[in-house]
Amino acid sequence: MLVITNEDLETFLEMPACIEALEAAYRDLGNRDAVDMPRQDAIVDNPRPGAVHAFKTMSGSWPAAGLAALRLNSDVVHWPEIEGSPRRVKIPVSQGDRYNGLVLLFSTETGELLAMFNDGVVQKTRVGGSSGVAAKYLAREDASVLGLIGSGWQATGQIEAMATVRDLELVKVFSTTAANREAFAETYSKKLGIEVRAVASSQEAAADADILVSATNSMTPTISADLVRPGMHVTSVRGSEIGLDVLQAVDRLVVNTHDPVSAHATRGWPEEIPEFVNGDYARPDIGVFDITQAPELKSVVAGQTPGRQSDDEITCFHNYKGMGLQFAAIGSIIYAEARTRQIGLTVDDRYFSQTVHP
Amino acid sequence: MLVITNEDLETFLEMPACIEALEAAYRDLGNRDAVDMPRQDAIVDNPRPGAVHAFKTMSGSWPAAGLAALRLNSDVVHWPEIEGSPRRVKIPVSQGDRYNGLVLLFSTETGELLAMFNDGVVQKTRVGGSSGVAAKYLAREDASVLGLIGSGWQATGQIEAMATVRDLELVKVFSTTAANREAFAETYSKKLGIEVRAVASSQEAAADADILVSATNSMTPTISADLVRPGMHVTSVRGSEIGLDVLQAVDRLVVNTHDPVSAHATRGWPEEIPEFVNGDYARPDIGVFDITQAPELKSVVAGQTPGRQSDDEITCFHNYKGMGLQFAAIGSIIYAEARTRQIGLTVDDRYFSQTVHP
Repeated sequence: MLVITNEDLETFLEMPACIEALEAAYRDLGNRDAVDMPRQDAIVDNPRPGAVHAFKTMSGSWPAAGLAALRLNSDVVHWPEIEGSPRRVKIPVSQGDRYNGLVLLFSTETGELLAMFNDGVVQKTRVGGSSGVAAKYLAREDASVLGLIGSGWQATGQIEAMATVRDLELVKVFSTTAANREAFAETYSKKLGIEVRAVASSQEAAADADILVSATNSMTPTISADLVRPGMHVTSVRGSEIGLDVLQAVDRLVVNTHDPVSAHATRGWPEEIPEFVNGDYARPDIGVFDITQAPELKSVVAGQTPGRQSDDEITCFHNYKGMGLQFAAIGSIIYAEARTRQIGLTVDDRYFSQTVHP
Repeated sequence: MLVITNEDLETFLEMPACIEALEAAYRDLGNRDAVDMPRQDAIVDNPRPGAVHAFKTMSGSWPAAGLAALRLNSDVVHWPEIEGSPRRVKIPVSQGDRYNGLVLLFSTETGELLAMFNDGVVQKTRVGGSSGVAAKYLAREDASVLGLIGSGWQATGQIEAMATVRDLELVKVFSTTAANREAFAETYSKKLGIEVRAVASSQEAAADADILVSATNSMTPTISADLVRPGMHVTSVRGSEIGLDVLQAVDRLVVNTHDPVSAHATRGWPEEIPEFVNGDYARPDIGVFDITQAPELKSVVAGQTPGRQSDDEITCFHNYKGMGLQFAAIGSIIYAEARTRQIGLTVDDRYFSQTVHP
């Protein structure tokens, strides 16, 4: 059994391979050759006032790669008021001020636990990667200008994914802190060898963009209908970033999954958690829209639902909820690469298997 | 992070402590001071003909003990025909002909992964232990004779649990192979210091029994209505062991949980899996009976629903589906004891936590 850390993964995990694996896994899921088990959350009291322990699981099995993945998060979460509205913030209270998110990778051939790895770097890669898969089917073939709102961690996954699936010539990046967007522009100009320009507003980022991406942690819309124009492909890393007016304006909306998140909470919760009211679990505006009427990405990749049909269409990928299967897809690369490169801590397999038939 | 094996656990895990922890956890669950996340199964193709990879998860968080548990099984399963009907059999194809079942234990205070342990021994203890909790509320106070059908692994958990919650004077054990029931009787006579008698039929085991338990792997009923008499408490380790006629005859039926198991399968499954038709997932007879009309054990333990009300009542605990919370309850003992005794393999915590906020 191999234990692999974020620091290990970062040395070899590349977006193009991730997008390839994700696309194959989505296709298999669409054809019912793979399965995904919807997210479950357990919310219980934590000694810190106003905080909870949130335990989250999602799983997926991908027989073509011989792998099943379980992704879990074990977080202490609170909701401080930031800029006038409550925001979900994880508190790093594990030893050394650390967070807890893990992926367990199993063989579907033998059942064995093959690997465990941190979910942090993978989380960015799978969100970016699935946006990339969607853009491959939904953005114009000749898309060359990317407008990017946000210059943080998730933004790096998005720019890498879009640069993988389309021949970008220009990226315009806006984020609220000028120093951050400028540093981001400099880094990615070098990395991608194309012009990445820091701009002063989301309007400027969106102007003439073929693909418009929001990658922020905002609980309120960052993309409104006035930023969107015919032929554009729009996406985000959170549901809250895309306004209801945008969802109503687009010609072709595709969502990551219809599967509901089921939350189980102790007394007092969830009624008092803002998250349950307007955050990750329920969105009144989406409720009005009924997102389950839109096709899922797996159907588009499997060819059961058309992607973009004309140059003028406005398309949108609603990359809202995660799927365990995404971790099996990216896990297939991580496990193969870590073995080839002899990276990771090996722990005797016999600790994790047993002779008794439970 | 502590890795603890079945062989480690067996040296210290005792039924009385497990029953105490389980009872407290059921009470908290009934009062909504703990949560349980229902079982999810992913069923996908396996290279062996007629076999599948079955990936199963269940979780529970118990803040009073500061613990959340995730139990998972990663099995290669097939359905050979045994005695004329298909039976679910796990194939031990992991290295060294081993099985894969694990429990992960997390802190609800810090989120940290505290321990991982095999689920095999715990599986027996939690099934036996929850039968013991139920018997405490449902069997007659003066119950002294136990009738036991089965002398295998699960039977050991049941006899230990019943001997914990009631002052047994006599146990009569029947199983199809005489040598097995005789060896069982000898072992437990010594272990419990009471008469444990091997008998030649289930009728003989049931005669004059105050508590009647079936602990077999039979897919057809082992307890029929003719074995049951007024004042008796009846239970089993599988739903299939208790006939519909018994469920209809009892005065007070209590079930372990109403929560449904959700199964997700690749193409071809589940239609062809006997399990889905008449095994663990759906039982036409139970479907007719509608088991969700019976109260759950948590409500009885929390005092929201009465237990036994008179000496003449026939009571039944339907110990059918497992709950992740049971593993948090027993995990609380395992983790404390393993730390005290300095048992287990320690792996650096930093492999399982991270600096990035995913």
